[in-house]
Amino acid sequence: FGTTPIDDELLRRIGKLAGELNHLLRRRVFFSHRDLDKVLDDWEAGRGFFLYTGRGPSGPMHIGHILPFYLTKWLQDRFGVNVYIQLTDDEKFLEEERGLTLEETRGWAYENALDIAAVGFDPDKTFIFQDTEYIRNMYPMALKVARKVNMSWVRAVFGFDMQTNIGMIFYPAIQIVPSLFEKRRCLIPCAIDQDPYWRIQRDIAESLGYYKAAAIHSKFLPPLTGPTGKMSASQPESAIYLHEDEESVRRKIWKAYSGGQPTAELHRKLGGNPEVDVAFQWLYYFFEPDDARLKKIEEDYRSGALLTGELKLILTEKVLRFLEEHREKREEAKEKLHLYKYDGELAKEMWKKIHE
Amino acid sequence: FGTTPIDDELLRRIGKLAGELNHLLRRRVFFSHRDLDKVLDDWEAGRGFFLYTGRGPSGPMHIGHILPFYLTKWLQDRFGVNVYIQLTDDEKFLEEERGLTLEETRGWAYENALDIAAVGFDPDKTFIFQDTEYIRNMYPMALKVARKVNMSWVRAVFGFDMQTNIGMIFYPAIQIVPSLFEKRRCLIPCAIDQDPYWRIQRDIAESLGYYKAAAIHSKFLPPLTGPTGKMSASQPESAIYLHEDEESVRRKIWKAYSGGQPTAELHRKLGGNPEVDVAFQWLYYFFEPDDARLKKIEEDYRSGALLTGELKLILTEKVLRFLEEHREKREEAKEKLHLYKYDGELAKEMWKKIHE
Repeated sequence: FGTTPIDDELLRRIGKLAGELNHLLRRRVFFSHRDLDKVLDDWEAGRGFFLYTGRGPSGPMHIGHILPFYLTKWLQDRFGVNVYIQLTDDEKFLEEERGLTLEETRGWAYENALDIAAVGFDPDKTFIFQDTEYIRNMYPMALKVARKVNMSWVRAVFGFDMQTNIGMIFYPAIQIVPSLFEKRRCLIPCAIDQDPYWRIQRDIAESLGYYKAAAIHSKFLPPLTGPTGKMSASQPESAIYLHEDEESVRRKIWKAYSGGQPTAELHRKLGGNPEVDVAFQWLYYFFEPDDARLKKIEEDYRSGALLTGELKLILTEKVLRFLEEHREKREEAKEKLHLYKYDGELAKEMWKKIHE
Repeated sequence: FGTTPIDDELLRRIGKLAGELNHLLRRRVFFSHRDLDKVLDDWEAGRGFFLYTGRGPSGPMHIGHILPFYLTKWLQDRFGVNVYIQLTDDEKFLEEERGLTLEETRGWAYENALDIAAVGFDPDKTFIFQDTEYIRNMYPMALKVARKVNMSWVRAVFGFDMQTNIGMIFYPAIQIVPSLFEKRRCLIPCAIDQDPYWRIQRDIAESLGYYKAAAIHSKFLPPLTGPTGKMSASQPESAIYLHEDEESVRRKIWKAYSGGQPTAELHRKLGGNPEVDVAFQWLYYFFEPDDARLKKIEEDYRSGALLTGELKLILTEKVLRFLEEHREKREEAKEKLHLYKYDGELAKEMWKKIHE
């Protein structure tokens, strides 16, 4: 992909500017970037920056989906910048193989917006918008982007071919527009699979009078079913959804792929392997931000002092607490969503702005 | 193209239902159609129909551009139906070879809207909209259309290739949407070069729960420079623009391609040829609706009793009178444009409607 690893020096710089270092960065869950150094230069020079991320509303969100939003919120808290969150109800409708109606993708856009709002963004500095609603404000800029991108290019980047529908072919223009919402550098926390859009953006942004987008890319949280691959809706056992009930959470984590030994006796003797243990990986990626405590868990597991069942229980309790808190904040978000979408300071400003 | 000629029987039927027959129909300026008979069936059965036409705002309008709007207005007057007029400021921006900015295509959209409003449509039954403004209301339906049309299809129909920009590739979805504004049959008066859009529309409309579009196709008013080809902005002598001044009109018609003889003497002896005489053709197409008077002019010209200069003067006076009236109505239209765009009964209704 040609992205750059986030190295120690860059981490130190963020830590210094932010006053602390989020564990998603410290532990290299966000592992690569484009121009993050320039974002920090801009920040130091007083030019500022803004954050943009998004969600394709094709179904319920799981823990892996919500994770990048936590880093985004952390960045907003630390730098006090605007956050734009795009819900691509158009894209998910256009992906024919999903067979979703527009009513469905819009329904999911609402449900997902509640989950995202529950993360606790600043309601006056965050704009959550869904493409079919905000299109009028974006369309002129989408046209300007689209005029610079031809079929040959999207074929090379996305693999589009003669069978691709003309909506999908145009769609990259829509996803690029929010990176041009401000005449500042845009930083995009996202999974690495979204990088192709930003490659196009970076090739055309300056000719439109804007900054090249910067990005930081996260790894995928490993699926419960094993240390490789991706959580997916077609394999419900691989993921834990934000709406999942206690019994189901306990069962899934209990059955999760482990790095332990076949029997407790052997485990006490030989110890477990945290590198492949999904419960440990989830603590590492997200659920145990305290480095000292994580280190203790890792050592105890490796030595055999901590049994697989015990490790899974530690994760289970953390996941259950997270989901419970999430659900409470999600309920509160129902009252606050209008601020993110229409009535907060940034939202109000955005509805008045035609991007061109 | 696979369209059907408008035959005598169909003309008689329109004449009967409309109470009269516009000379643009009578003289076969509108010469071919799709499903016009079904539109009349629908009308007779009380299901009604609606009219849709448009304009690509890439520059000033000439007399050839405004002609189809006169038939559209006549149909509205006679049948009392709704008229939707699309100004494709997006398309004209996306056509790279024009090199127009969005500011320019929007500026032309305003100027052209005034010319169109000057035709005198019913302000409560006519909606003039421009794509970049009305996109939010159209976008969901455009997505539904786009999902049914792939690259291979638009390549075959429009000749799009790997160099075509992704905006142009998507654009046919936008032009098709207004044909689905009502759950009635849509009749589209247009030049024959727009027919490819309606061929696609007709293949997908029913699967979306709408009617196949009907169309009537006009010939192009012959250019002043000769009886073949098309009036074009790159050849200003070929056309007369709606804003053109008297001196320029007199000069252009005076220099127009004629069917007369080299000298007055020869002309009196041999007579002229109205079939190739552009001045006569313009009277036939548009400026002399009275059949008896036109016939007299034709006979006199053919016999040599009417000289080329005299024929040109007849046309000149008619064109000048038309342009003068047009300019007066255009001035009045400045006060009325808001009705067509936002505040008339139909416009108000349309702004509330999301098409999906």
